[in-house]
Amino acid sequence: MKSDIDTLMTARGLDALIVAGGEGYDDVLDYLVNGAHITGGTIVKKRGGDFLLIVSGMEIEEARHSGLKVMTYGELGYMQAVTQITDPLLREVKKLELALQEAGVEGGRIGWYGRNTVNETIAVFQALQQELPHYEFVGEASPSLFEEVMLTKDTDEIERLSDIGARTVEVLEATWDFIASHQANGDDVVVDDAGNPLTIGDVKTFVRRALLDRGLEDTDMIFAQGRDAGYPHSRGQSNMPLKLGQSIVFDLFPRELGGGYHHDVTRTWCIGYAPETVQKTYDEVMQALDISVETFGVGKPTHTMQEAVLDFFEGNGHQTQRSHPGGLKGYVHSLGHGLGLKVHERPSISHTRREDVFAVGNCVTIEPGLYYPEDGYGVRVEDTFIVTENGELVSITPFKKDLVLPLKEA
Amino acid sequence: MKSDIDTLMTARGLDALIVAGGEGYDDVLDYLVNGAHITGGTIVKKRGGDFLLIVSGMEIEEARHSGLKVMTYGELGYMQAVTQITDPLLREVKKLELALQEAGVEGGRIGWYGRNTVNETIAVFQALQQELPHYEFVGEASPSLFEEVMLTKDTDEIERLSDIGARTVEVLEATWDFIASHQANGDDVVVDDAGNPLTIGDVKTFVRRALLDRGLEDTDMIFAQGRDAGYPHSRGQSNMPLKLGQSIVFDLFPRELGGGYHHDVTRTWCIGYAPETVQKTYDEVMQALDISVETFGVGKPTHTMQEAVLDFFEGNGHQTQRSHPGGLKGYVHSLGHGLGLKVHERPSISHTRREDVFAVGNCVTIEPGLYYPEDGYGVRVEDTFIVTENGELVSITPFKKDLVLPLKEA
Repeated sequence: MKSDIDTLMTARGLDALIVAGGEGYDDVLDYLVNGAHITGGTIVKKRGGDFLLIVSGMEIEEARHSGLKVMTYGELGYMQAVTQITDPLLREVKKLELALQEAGVEGGRIGWYGRNTVNETIAVFQALQQELPHYEFVGEASPSLFEEVMLTKDTDEIERLSDIGARTVEVLEATWDFIASHQANGDDVVVDDAGNPLTIGDVKTFVRRALLDRGLEDTDMIFAQGRDAGYPHSRGQSNMPLKLGQSIVFDLFPRELGGGYHHDVTRTWCIGYAPETVQKTYDEVMQALDISVETFGVGKPTHTMQEAVLDFFEGNGHQTQRSHPGGLKGYVHSLGHGLGLKVHERPSISHTRREDVFAVGNCVTIEPGLYYPEDGYGVRVEDTFIVTENGELVSITPFKKDLVLPLKEA
Repeated sequence: MKSDIDTLMTARGLDALIVAGGEGYDDVLDYLVNGAHITGGTIVKKRGGDFLLIVSGMEIEEARHSGLKVMTYGELGYMQAVTQITDPLLREVKKLELALQEAGVEGGRIGWYGRNTVNETIAVFQALQQELPHYEFVGEASPSLFEEVMLTKDTDEIERLSDIGARTVEVLEATWDFIASHQANGDDVVVDDAGNPLTIGDVKTFVRRALLDRGLEDTDMIFAQGRDAGYPHSRGQSNMPLKLGQSIVFDLFPRELGGGYHHDVTRTWCIGYAPETVQKTYDEVMQALDISVETFGVGKPTHTMQEAVLDFFEGNGHQTQRSHPGGLKGYVHSLGHGLGLKVHERPSISHTRREDVFAVGNCVTIEPGLYYPEDGYGVRVEDTFIVTENGELVSITPFKKDLVLPLKEA
């Protein structure tokens, strides 16, 4: 939570932090500016001090919505300084130097956050080492300070995440009903008497509109059928007609319009009927989901949950990433991940990332799956969960987990 | 263009390049994978050699859509290697080392691209320096190699950009008609006989749907009225009712669904009537647009176009960022920017970035504006232009530039 920032700065020996990246969505910036829509901007904070947000004059009115102390690059003196500097790297150095000075940071260890191109980060970093040797700019592998801060959500965030979950469930319901309202012609799902097929593209268009109507936006959903469903991240082919009796992996991970918090849910559907193999695999995946939830406990390492599922799947004869690293069939991914302003946050629920521990305030996905692309199917089921103040793991995806989606008029 | 990559590698003394960032949209990755929808992935290329795309097994099916040579991290040997490595930094180092070796790169200068968090980039960079001293990973300030590559668009890209422009114009037309279909009640624009106001939020919802219907998505449009219009990047307040006689700055910069090429257009509208001051300012901005186009020439430095506009505005008594760096009124931004997979690319049309030159294949915005927030208004007009093979500057935003938007029934 945000209230942990000073404590985590102390633990890392940071005298100050600065958030200064390039263009494009930056979850750390968004996290700190409380929903203000800012292009660019620099945030600086001395340990124990307040946040200072510096933006271009064009952004100042939006920046005031952040509730932070704000100033423009003009007020900082940067716009005047830059008229004397032609080297783009030295301009960046001057910007960071002025920002740190404005926050009263005259030296020491500086945690540097934000998102930028790798090439520019390296170039600026080397220029900073050269030009400002009284500061030490500190890199961090994952989990970074802000990843640790975001590990636990506060009451407002949990409420917001739950609300996004409720809206996403409405979209799932609407999508189920939309597909169900069509007719079958043999093994095709058709839209009219002429036998024109309902395609994956049609469904995705429906889903995007349904999200928009609820203030959400798609971030590249998966709606993959048959063999494609056997590759966990295949998006699905737009022009492919929906077929009866095929496994369809529908993974929806929308976010608030314009950038914000996410939800993440997967259902596997078979339209009309489920082949025996798919049904059997589905039942195993559902059992793995139950095992996951039973294994949960606040304070437990997250890898123990993944290991319980690995034990179960391997016991049933499936290959996994533990038994066959790099394999393409069986259980080929980790069990889940934290969720918030990014769709993948810490904690990881993985056997290879072993340092995370379940805690009150976590928001995580749990998403076991089994994949057999050469046999033409895949199955995944996923809910988003929060860990309540009572230490309970509660799904915020209250949508049915039926495999078979019957057409109303078959 | 893509065909320039080897030449630019030679010019920079690069023996190889690697694209390896974190999660989230990465324009360089998207540019190279030809529309495949991949989460993560590493691309490596020896100078003179082909591109090699390495992805997780989950992504392999999507990755094949790229047309590049593809392999999984399992096939690379990374998934096996990682079982022996617990340090996340050393895992990253191993990944890049294996990728470079697979491409036959045993040493030398490596251009490193992609997008990632600043903190992780620095941490990995320092680990690479320590662990793989036979490689020199090279940072680059803007313009990076890929920014230079993307400076000019090939025929397919120009066609795609023009098509997005045409669809965006349809949305502008539909939005104009949508607003015009409402009635006035005094200075309010109202939606029904009860006098309920049409709000900025209503208009934005309409625009988002109209974009979606055309395969485009909003990336945080500006629809700012009155005083808000006086701050170039104020997004507009959703609950604010539309008023007659206020300047409205409508800046729309959508992209293809799920990430892709952009369009960028701004119109300033006054509903019903325009106050004399706004009309006069609008006429000046339109004149600045004409001056910009007249100043254009292939081979000319882009800053000369900005300087022509600065001369004109300053001659008319307006403050600018040249006369008053950091000022908040008058002409407070640069004249334009390149456009493609990012909404802001090179070339810059600015008096402070002086190294860019107009070239065949450029896709650029031209967007003069004047801002007087304390007087409650702002004006900006913007089209997206391409530079044709004949060296002509041609707008791909064929939408009328009327200031006054009359209601059909006032």
